[in-house]
Amino acid sequence: MAASIDGYIADADGGIGWLAPYEGADFGYAQLMAQVECVVVGRATYDMIAGFDHWPYAGKRVVVLTHRPLPAVDHCVERFAGDVAILAEELRRDCQGDIYVDGGAHTLRAFIDADLIDRYDLFTLPLLLGRGIPRFLPSPRRTHLRLDSCQAMDLGVVRSTYLRG
Amino acid sequence: MAASIDGYIADADGGIGWLAPYEGADFGYAQLMAQVECVVVGRATYDMIAGFDHWPYAGKRVVVLTHRPLPAVDHCVERFAGDVAILAEELRRDCQGDIYVDGGAHTLRAFIDADLIDRYDLFTLPLLLGRGIPRFLPSPRRTHLRLDSCQAMDLGVVRSTYLRG
Repeated sequence: MAASIDGYIADADGGIGWLAPYEGADFGYAQLMAQVECVVVGRATYDMIAGFDHWPYAGKRVVVLTHRPLPAVDHCVERFAGDVAILAEELRRDCQGDIYVDGGAHTLRAFIDADLIDRYDLFTLPLLLGRGIPRFLPSPRRTHLRLDSCQAMDLGVVRSTYLRG
Repeated sequence: MAASIDGYIADADGGIGWLAPYEGADFGYAQLMAQVECVVVGRATYDMIAGFDHWPYAGKRVVVLTHRPLPAVDHCVERFAGDVAILAEELRRDCQGDIYVDGGAHTLRAFIDADLIDRYDLFTLPLLLGRGIPRFLPSPRRTHLRLDSCQAMDLGVVRSTYLRG
């Protein structure tokens, strides 16, 4: 998931216009996504992505965490409401490829707190956004990780990969 | 400045016990400090450091940002209250070596917002602390930086260096 140095994934109003200068550059994201069979997203992230001209999850199973019905759209997505541990178990049984939790912050936090993340792929963009929606929502839980690698990518993006500690 | 992956420099109560496993390891901090002639710290950070058995700023000029008088201690420190841009100008005139803003968050934010930081040396420790005192306090200001380097250090610490954008 991409965030600013100060850890924001979106403007205070949810905007991601500040990401525009980094679109199209190769940070290894395409390669990462090639391994992904299933994507899990929260409702706000889905609603935002569904509004894009280009559907970024073509060919992948997409699960949207939401209690509300989804609008009828062309994309083939599933709805899930409930314990993310149950969802993870089901997806791990069904999927050969990676399962990618693509945000937003509430979705990521639910998976972290249930200790369901095997690998964190974090892209840090070279700016301090100042304020906005944090990548990691506060939690009483402390989570120790193990650094797998860190790499300087195009445009000053840092890619850090962590494994379960 | 060292922080968790989720950007906290201290527990919610200001505690830094979670840093203990990383003490003594070489992250390049000693080398960085060898270039430093002057250290600027906020009052809370100073009060904490003054309570340590070991004074970490031996041989350096230390300026504490505070309106309140400092207690009489052995360490030779100066007090400053006012515009940090004026302080920075004075220190740049007087110092040959680096001037190091060592926190806390309010002090760092004041220097960032006045565009006084030439280089950011950020150490990221491999855990999600969950909650606490953030390294970067919220600000309406957006600050673009330029990645200088990132490096995996001992114990899974990532050192990222950014320059003014």
